[in-house]
Amino acid sequence: MSDRIHATYRVWGDDIAGVAEAIRVEQTIEFPFDLAEKWIQDEVVGWIESITPSPEGYSDVHISYDTRTVGGELTQLLNVLWGNTSMLPGVRLIDVVLPDSLLASFKGPRFGIEGMRNMLNAPERGLVGTALKPMGSSPKQLAEMAYTIASAGFDTIKDDHSLANQPWAKWHERVDAIATAVREANEKHGTRCLYAPSLHLPADEIQDAAKEAKRLGAGSVLILPGICGFDALRMVAEDDDFALPVMGHPSLLGSFVTPNQHGLAHHVVFGILMRIAGADISIFPNFGGRFSFTPDECMDITKTARAPMGQMKPVWVSPAGGMTLERIDEMLDFYGNDTAALVGGALHRGDLAENSKNMVEIIHRHVGG
Amino acid sequence: MSDRIHATYRVWGDDIAGVAEAIRVEQTIEFPFDLAEKWIQDEVVGWIESITPSPEGYSDVHISYDTRTVGGELTQLLNVLWGNTSMLPGVRLIDVVLPDSLLASFKGPRFGIEGMRNMLNAPERGLVGTALKPMGSSPKQLAEMAYTIASAGFDTIKDDHSLANQPWAKWHERVDAIATAVREANEKHGTRCLYAPSLHLPADEIQDAAKEAKRLGAGSVLILPGICGFDALRMVAEDDDFALPVMGHPSLLGSFVTPNQHGLAHHVVFGILMRIAGADISIFPNFGGRFSFTPDECMDITKTARAPMGQMKPVWVSPAGGMTLERIDEMLDFYGNDTAALVGGALHRGDLAENSKNMVEIIHRHVGG
Repeated sequence: MSDRIHATYRVWGDDIAGVAEAIRVEQTIEFPFDLAEKWIQDEVVGWIESITPSPEGYSDVHISYDTRTVGGELTQLLNVLWGNTSMLPGVRLIDVVLPDSLLASFKGPRFGIEGMRNMLNAPERGLVGTALKPMGSSPKQLAEMAYTIASAGFDTIKDDHSLANQPWAKWHERVDAIATAVREANEKHGTRCLYAPSLHLPADEIQDAAKEAKRLGAGSVLILPGICGFDALRMVAEDDDFALPVMGHPSLLGSFVTPNQHGLAHHVVFGILMRIAGADISIFPNFGGRFSFTPDECMDITKTARAPMGQMKPVWVSPAGGMTLERIDEMLDFYGNDTAALVGGALHRGDLAENSKNMVEIIHRHVGG
Repeated sequence: MSDRIHATYRVWGDDIAGVAEAIRVEQTIEFPFDLAEKWIQDEVVGWIESITPSPEGYSDVHISYDTRTVGGELTQLLNVLWGNTSMLPGVRLIDVVLPDSLLASFKGPRFGIEGMRNMLNAPERGLVGTALKPMGSSPKQLAEMAYTIASAGFDTIKDDHSLANQPWAKWHERVDAIATAVREANEKHGTRCLYAPSLHLPADEIQDAAKEAKRLGAGSVLILPGICGFDALRMVAEDDDFALPVMGHPSLLGSFVTPNQHGLAHHVVFGILMRIAGADISIFPNFGGRFSFTPDECMDITKTARAPMGQMKPVWVSPAGGMTLERIDEMLDFYGNDTAALVGGALHRGDLAENSKNMVEIIHRHVGG
């Protein structure tokens, strides 16, 4: 591929060529094409590389953009790829290929698959993870839960994505209590469990909260880029004073991927955007759970998360959402061992300690299987 | 209404009651309902207030949430209203009513309609605005353009939403040059034109850039909450050291409103969310332009932007996107004078100075009409 940004839009409707022309102008100069200077027409406006009709009635419109239109910033990359075109019905961004020169603008995942394997002393197996729930629990209850789970040998324990600053468990008190409990469990058992508090906080608090979480003993953090923006995830992941693994959560991102004939392909959001923003673990709903992702969509995300992409490290996929212990072997067969398994509520049906030990056993045993 | 958050979801499909139950649990505890403590079941989980079937086959599911689930933060409000439900197909959030107790957590628009009328000495008429384009122009070219437009008597001149940190016009140099040009025009003509540079910047630069823009002479700023998050808009709007009007731009927000049978209603995004985040001017695509909004959707946004909402000031609507001088009278008839008209590229067809003067005249003349 050339040193340009390549985006493929699937377009439904009667006037494919008109929409293609509209997109290449809208996403760059948003200005009457004929009034722009010649060099801007030639260099700044996107190029239609090809239009490929399909028997199903849609056409795939391949447009390339000059890398300079992005100015090396993730915020403007989102704008060029999807900004105003998000308001056009019948258009879906189905693929993106970024040149290495642009990818070099971003640090990407600090740890990725290999980095977290080293950190967790887990050279081959999948990772064992859960989320602390439900909202309404006190810091003490959540900390006791975390102690039990960490003692069972979990690799990661994250806050539920809905834990913010509710009166039942304010952020600072909660993070302090849970980080302390996980540290005590690690010290007692000689384990390395990472607690990932949620940085689901006001925009002006995220950066400091990441460092405060680290100071309190957190080993990772959870970020919701659908709410705080992908660039806030990048900001934390690239911060050398923080320098811990980052998990990306799909809250609100369903609006980008779920609609038919609109939005962005699943692998673009959970593979490409999560990865260039710097998520070491990309969480998304597994097929067959409570949500609507298909096996193909989940596999597309997975392949993209692990494919060569400039200097970006490959990252963990974490298919979640209504997962159970009974499905873990099937998941590891499907996704492979470079998977951060995440079982939430189901861990609490029956005895938490016993279920947690079972989940650790299932994943550790799967290594040779 | 009670002191609860009221959300109405339109649900398509066969199992409306099942989806309603799923939403009230998913959006709060995301945990097996039967395993939660009794008080959490009763108080933390959402309540189904009503399910109203329609002859068209969908049903409207009215769910209320305890205000404590939000913890007074806009980020978590978004999560409760739409977080994981964004990943359910066939669900659209069609209305939201927030209690005054929660609205009081946010400052909202600092100026709103009346505040900007006072600031601009425009007691009755609509506002006259444009955007500086196209990408590729140099700071000098954009500044000359701004000088011409400000001299014609415009109220607001914003950066095009795609201007970020491209090599052709880096942010600081651009903002400095344009702010200077607009100040010179104001001094020469005794006018009060506000230049609104875009804060379409990395997450860790937005807050400081707002204050730097003010220091350089900007009178307002443009923010893209679809990219940086609604809470970043709130952060800037509520910053007492900044304290200038804020414009909200719809880039990327089409993913929330455009899909059928999915997403959020237009007035929820461009009326409610923009307003509680603190936008004084809510920009959205006018009907009949390049995009897909209908007259009804535009009017819903407009009514919501001006309706009583706790202590929140009413805000300007700014219907844009391919607007022309010929449509201004029709727009002001439709939206009324509390409208911030925004004509972009069309101002450049022919003579910019003449077109700019014409646009000012059309809007000033409309007062008595």
